[in-house]
Amino acid sequence: MKSIRITFTLLAIALASQTLAHAQDPLPSWNDGPAKQAIVDFVRATTETGGAKFVPPEERIATFDQDGTLWVEHPIYSQVMYCLDRVPVLVKEKPELKNVEPFKTVLSGDLEAIAKLPLPELEKILVATLSGMTTEQFQAEAKKWLASAKDHRWKRPYTELTYQPMQEVLKYLRANDYKTYIVTGGGQDFVRVYSEEVYGIPPEQVVGSAGATKYGYDKEGKPILTKEPRFLLNDNNAGKPEGIHLMIGRRPYAAFGNSTGDRQMLEYTKAGDGARLSMLVLHDDAEREYAYGPAQGLPNTKVGTFTQALYDEAKKDGWIVISMKKDWKRIFAFEN
Amino acid sequence: MKSIRITFTLLAIALASQTLAHAQDPLPSWNDGPAKQAIVDFVRATTETGGAKFVPPEERIATFDQDGTLWVEHPIYSQVMYCLDRVPVLVKEKPELKNVEPFKTVLSGDLEAIAKLPLPELEKILVATLSGMTTEQFQAEAKKWLASAKDHRWKRPYTELTYQPMQEVLKYLRANDYKTYIVTGGGQDFVRVYSEEVYGIPPEQVVGSAGATKYGYDKEGKPILTKEPRFLLNDNNAGKPEGIHLMIGRRPYAAFGNSTGDRQMLEYTKAGDGARLSMLVLHDDAEREYAYGPAQGLPNTKVGTFTQALYDEAKKDGWIVISMKKDWKRIFAFEN
Repeated sequence: MKSIRITFTLLAIALASQTLAHAQDPLPSWNDGPAKQAIVDFVRATTETGGAKFVPPEERIATFDQDGTLWVEHPIYSQVMYCLDRVPVLVKEKPELKNVEPFKTVLSGDLEAIAKLPLPELEKILVATLSGMTTEQFQAEAKKWLASAKDHRWKRPYTELTYQPMQEVLKYLRANDYKTYIVTGGGQDFVRVYSEEVYGIPPEQVVGSAGATKYGYDKEGKPILTKEPRFLLNDNNAGKPEGIHLMIGRRPYAAFGNSTGDRQMLEYTKAGDGARLSMLVLHDDAEREYAYGPAQGLPNTKVGTFTQALYDEAKKDGWIVISMKKDWKRIFAFEN
Repeated sequence: MKSIRITFTLLAIALASQTLAHAQDPLPSWNDGPAKQAIVDFVRATTETGGAKFVPPEERIATFDQDGTLWVEHPIYSQVMYCLDRVPVLVKEKPELKNVEPFKTVLSGDLEAIAKLPLPELEKILVATLSGMTTEQFQAEAKKWLASAKDHRWKRPYTELTYQPMQEVLKYLRANDYKTYIVTGGGQDFVRVYSEEVYGIPPEQVVGSAGATKYGYDKEGKPILTKEPRFLLNDNNAGKPEGIHLMIGRRPYAAFGNSTGDRQMLEYTKAGDGARLSMLVLHDDAEREYAYGPAQGLPNTKVGTFTQALYDEAKKDGWIVISMKKDWKRIFAFEN
């Protein structure tokens, strides 16, 4: 009887300490190493009351690129897939586009030809499929598409292809009073449709490439905002710190990216006073996700260019490079 | 002895109930009446769990115009005063402007002539004094000016000329999980300098007229953002709902304004589903503040036009007009 009780007690202690160990590790999907350590050290330094690098809660801002940093971007941005999928609907509304390039190629379904469309042609598709409707119509359409569209490799909704280690970073920072923002080259209106559900980030904390809207009234005289084919903010490269100033008005203390499009955001963040954290996700895991980019001697792709120059700047300026292969225990939540 | 104890007990009860009464009235500077009642009813309806008009906390957005709604705008916007005060500094840096209009008139100090400057000339002054420096230089300059500049009538810093009843509305809404935003035709960068200290509203919750910035590097290679003489967002009239969509991405549940520049914001807010509150401050108190605007048969001024058409739309669409004279017990905190 006594030995049973002791066994139970030991078991209870063991379980309790295991739970405790888990509770103490805010980043369970990360392997121990310099990347994980840098995140934990940064949070400790900036939140320790009375510490030399303490940051008041209201100033705690962290910004995250989305495509390739928070979720899969290879082989093609999911928003571009959305725009391509919208072309048949668009042509139904405007039949005169049927024999006009680039719509003709998209309608042909010839994936190789579609992949070869040059950027200006692709932009025509983006503009045509992302404007000309009210903001509410767009939200409804994007929501519907996201609920049914699936990635070709994992056969899962795009919204499931977020990186579990990065989800843990978002939660860990928020638990320490950081306001987490998405700062994406992707469309602001598109990302806002799912950011709260997928990342716990409300629409007002999504900064992205944005088109103008035009205020007016529908047939019943009800106010509407119509999406216009006119760029307000190209939230890539220098547009990222410019967009951060416009939409947030404070310099971030931490920033995460994965490509040359994030370079200026990481520079701008790191150049602030006190403890600042700039991190870059390196796609070096061909088996569990993808490996691409010149910094690894691999061919460049249409998405997320990670050049040798970016790698060199990271090393020189003290940004931390995250190796998906070495630093992440698992990539997706569904792998559990 | 016993009577003393009873007296003490009664006194304690009296004090406690007084405290309680005060705690129960979130709007002590408001007189009882339809305006105060509308605010209290709106908050109750949207926060009562299980109620038909309940709004989830994350969707609780309230937007406030600034000039004339949260603080004094008459006879001239304080930001315009800032720009006029900057002209001598600007001319010292660029002596070639000394004999060029409108700078020459401003330097003359002839207040009547300055007041008569037409809008395009005034805009030249705004552009010249609000661009061409880094965002950090601008913040430092504006902060310094705000600390010393004083209003001509009350001889107090502009930041003390906020309306106490509106400060109470801001706090009351925030206590009920509303996120409060300033949506101003004034300069976003200018208002952000003091919004947190003056209104408890962080810079990222200030939407205003905004110029572009340009990312670059200073002589030491440090990243900087330079304020450009190019408009990104004119946050007046239709620009208000457009700016709300750009910067917040959700329709407000409550909006407060005081002029035709706020019309579209109030329409857009009121057109949403469920309980929505649109309110207009009417400047009808010549004694304690100012009285102006065609809706009262008074001459129009350079600031905050309140037309008869606006008044009619308010009545027709169920917006609530706040009479400064009748609805506000006091105007400023320093009147206490």
